[in-house]
Amino acid sequence: MSARPLPLSRAAFAHFQTITTRWMDNDVYGHVNNVQYYSFFDTVVNGYLIANGALDPERGAVIGLVVETHCNYFEPLRFPQIVEAGLRVAHLGTSSVRYEIGLFESDADAAAAQGHFVYVYVDRATRRPVLLPELLRTALAPLTA
Amino acid sequence: MSARPLPLSRAAFAHFQTITTRWMDNDVYGHVNNVQYYSFFDTVVNGYLIANGALDPERGAVIGLVVETHCNYFEPLRFPQIVEAGLRVAHLGTSSVRYEIGLFESDADAAAAQGHFVYVYVDRATRRPVLLPELLRTALAPLTA
Amino acid sequence: MSARPLPLSRAAFAHFQTITTRWMDNDVYGHVNNVQYYSFFDTVVNGYLIANGALDPERGAVIGLVVETHCNYFEPLRFPQIVEAGLRVAHLGTSSVRYEIGLFESDADAAAAQGHFVYVYVDRATRRPVLLPELLRTALAPLTA
Amino acid sequence: MSARPLPLSRAAFAHFQTITTRWMDNDVYGHVNNVQYYSFFDTVVNGYLIANGALDPERGAVIGLVVETHCNYFEPLRFPQIVEAGLRVAHLGTSSVRYEIGLFESDADAAAAQGHFVYVYVDRATRRPVLLPELLRTALAPLTA
Repeated sequence: MSARPLPLSRAAFAHFQTITTRWMDNDVYGHVNNVQYYSFFDTVVNGYLIANGALDPERGAVIGLVVETHCNYFEPLRFPQIVEAGLRVAHLGTSSVRYEIGLFESDADAAAAQGHFVYVYVDRATRRPVLLPELLRTALAPLTA
Repeated sequence: MSARPLPLSRAAFAHFQTITTRWMDNDVYGHVNNVQYYSFFDTVVNGYLIANGALDPERGAVIGLVVETHCNYFEPLRFPQIVEAGLRVAHLGTSSVRYEIGLFESDADAAAAQGHFVYVYVDRATRRPVLLPELLRTALAPLTA
Repeated sequence: MSARPLPLSRAAFAHFQTITTRWMDNDVYGHVNNVQYYSFFDTVVNGYLIANGALDPERGAVIGLVVETHCNYFEPLRFPQIVEAGLRVAHLGTSSVRYEIGLFESDADAAAAQGHFVYVYVDRATRRPVLLPELLRTALAPLTA
Repeated sequence: MSARPLPLSRAAFAHFQTITTRWMDNDVYGHVNNVQYYSFFDTVVNGYLIANGALDPERGAVIGLVVETHCNYFEPLRFPQIVEAGLRVAHLGTSSVRYEIGLFESDADAAAAQGHFVYVYVDRATRRPVLLPELLRTALAPLTA
């Protein structure tokens, strides 16, 4: 198995969003189920894009489809904690973007979990890849190292 | 069918909690799926109890089991909105509590949705109803009209 | 509080659908979280309509919006159980339908939980109520007592 | 970005479990949200272990904690499809297991999505890694290539 990455610190991320946990997130072991971490990832990515006018999920001509996701888990999260999700862009391709996300407990500088999402941006109707729209490139520029 | 209730206003509720919506909450019609409203209800109820020392879901001798839930939907919620959940206690029984919850958009005084949860408090091991613990009664007193 | 209803038996329902539970459904108390029951309700209702050509969630001119939901819980369900969801129609209104659902463990005749969903059928674009489409009335006829 | 893997065929997997999709799984784009795929992964892994007596999530002395998850998405899934989840074990470590999972539409031989879960098995009380229990090794043997 490949070596486990080390937790990133907050300084590695350019944008943060607060996410409140829910009672239902906790599984039988008393902490947030591993699946929900991806819901937090998806929320910070799409939340950023919507807030910056780069994604209109209901009417936009271009939508993002996920082709790869990944997460490493370091420390458990648990309801009723509040989570801060950090976001950065690691790679801007022709039609794809690799987003990297860290999840932080409110009093911690090291990520409790971190991972990535690769989105391919496609024409809503044909679902074929398109060049990244200028609006998207502009919105993502501040997230690129 | 019974008459539809009218939306309650914020003044009807004694305690509020902020809940952030998630990308995944939105269903194919572009707003928060009706099921997730109950997740918000459950979060404000248990969040209040944990914050006030009246519920320890992992070690407490008494836990709450849900026997009835209900929701009326007035206005759609949608990610990335932030929701404020209002809570009050409508009835304290021998071993049960009826919680009433309203969900509010941040700029609205009328509930977007409202409903109730009836919990029966039981011994964790035997799952038989118990008298409401004093700690719980004390915590709920400020929520009772 | 109003009197608790008695569990219905399988004979009360006209259509059944099998639903597999998921690891994540179980909450900290080791059984399916109360919220997920509504996901099962929504699945049997919309699954029936899609299978019978009465709902096209992506392109149909008429869609169903939920205005009221309710559930009574009698026995816990838990992953990895398989659940059978029974469906009947209790009321056909001008533009609304009241669906009643029972959830059954595979070896039980009495419902582990039961409840209802009231849907109002609306024009997809205007979201105003419409007369129930003939296709929907026809599909629902076998579910009406 | 690293090269995208090719979809595996059913023959690559040793065990299959049927998973029914739910109305709520579909997101605003009309197919199963990327997050839910992990719920399917977690379900086939833990479902297999429970069915084979190698995991007792409520009372067992050893539980599995997830340290890494990954998914590649090739074809969309959508409610009301039924999904078949294939499972194999790629690596048995001292205290960890790498499970690989493929998700298949019912009429397809190539995976619609595939990924992995790395679990570390720990003492329930101390949450420290333990040697893989003999019962677990025995249960996993048929899944190892």
